[in-house]
Amino acid sequence: MRISDLSRKTGLPVSTIKFYLRDGLLPPGEPTGRNQARYGESHLRRLGLIRALTTVGRLDLTSVRTLLLAVEDEQVPLAELYDAVHRAVAHAHAHALPAKPENIDQVHTEIDRFIARLGWKVGPDAPGREPLALVLATLRDLGCECDIDAFTPYAHAARRIAAQEMDRPPANAGEADRLGVVVRGVLLEVALTSLRLMAERHEAIQRFGVPTRG
Amino acid sequence: MRISDLSRKTGLPVSTIKFYLRDGLLPPGEPTGRNQARYGESHLRRLGLIRALTTVGRLDLTSVRTLLLAVEDEQVPLAELYDAVHRAVAHAHAHALPAKPENIDQVHTEIDRFIARLGWKVGPDAPGREPLALVLATLRDLGCECDIDAFTPYAHAARRIAAQEMDRPPANAGEADRLGVVVRGVLLEVALTSLRLMAERHEAIQRFGVPTRG
Repeated sequence: MRISDLSRKTGLPVSTIKFYLRDGLLPPGEPTGRNQARYGESHLRRLGLIRALTTVGRLDLTSVRTLLLAVEDEQVPLAELYDAVHRAVAHAHAHALPAKPENIDQVHTEIDRFIARLGWKVGPDAPGREPLALVLATLRDLGCECDIDAFTPYAHAARRIAAQEMDRPPANAGEADRLGVVVRGVLLEVALTSLRLMAERHEAIQRFGVPTRG
Repeated sequence: MRISDLSRKTGLPVSTIKFYLRDGLLPPGEPTGRNQARYGESHLRRLGLIRALTTVGRLDLTSVRTLLLAVEDEQVPLAELYDAVHRAVAHAHAHALPAKPENIDQVHTEIDRFIARLGWKVGPDAPGREPLALVLATLRDLGCECDIDAFTPYAHAARRIAAQEMDRPPANAGEADRLGVVVRGVLLEVALTSLRLMAERHEAIQRFGVPTRG
């Protein structure tokens, strides 16, 4: 099919598809003449994938490119592939951050101890650690108590979900499995946040009644 | 103190503070002359709060305004206050969404059944339900399996955290308690996502080794 067919079938503007081609996110089609090329089902699938990661998964194109390169290069070990997924997800959720609260060092020490009690081996640079510290320090600044140990059962549940997910890809994961690691890693983040919102909703309704908007 | 002192102490530009004043997000100071006013500690605290909700909490100013109005109006029952928090958090995480996948109706039916098995009473319009459906439908579109029942232990843990949180505010919650509901509701969302990232990190390191970047 031609680029106009790709556009019609995906709903993406031709200019966007051309941008992905120039950028290397979409592999070139088979040349059929000057400035003309033929595209196939694999191009359609690729466009669907890019769209899922950028819309539902909220990634920017730089993260998408990094992840797809890591999927395709089978020399990249799974440890690095997961690292790339975690950094992309953390990046998608990082916004302009405020100046560091004064009590941040003390909070980092508390988090170190909490992680040690959980028995987790994650380095000081692990994605997630900085925003967690920032939230706890900000809550204290605003006069809210926050006992990190209250999150222990949640931390265990989060680890169980991670373990379930990682039982999927075989040790010698091929490209399709590696792509599954990326797609699930990015999208499940959104699913679990949504599920948590519904849990809060249910609990609020049980205690305080149904709000006007249902 | 003068507006320039507020700016120096918070690091916010005077123009931003003036915008908050015009917008009603920050209450007016005590007039001391033509175009001059004196501000106090309560203004500093308010600016800290707005900043925490917009940066760490990732809310837009419309959501901040809605939440602060709901906090201050003690006629707003807790059911509505929690509703406002859940909608603000869901909105902060909603991006441009793709066209609805074809299989979305079937996925909604599955989610209805899953929620019924959990025993949760949440309406069809509950924040979180639409993005959850979108993720599941998109995963299937991309050829990834997705068994929603695998999330059951996670759903229970999320509800336990919600219940713990809701044990805090007293039934006749005053303004300080109501503000705590909002601040914790918005910021803990970020903390729990961060904690989940670290859980995934730990599990990946256990199985696949430490990535280069630690």
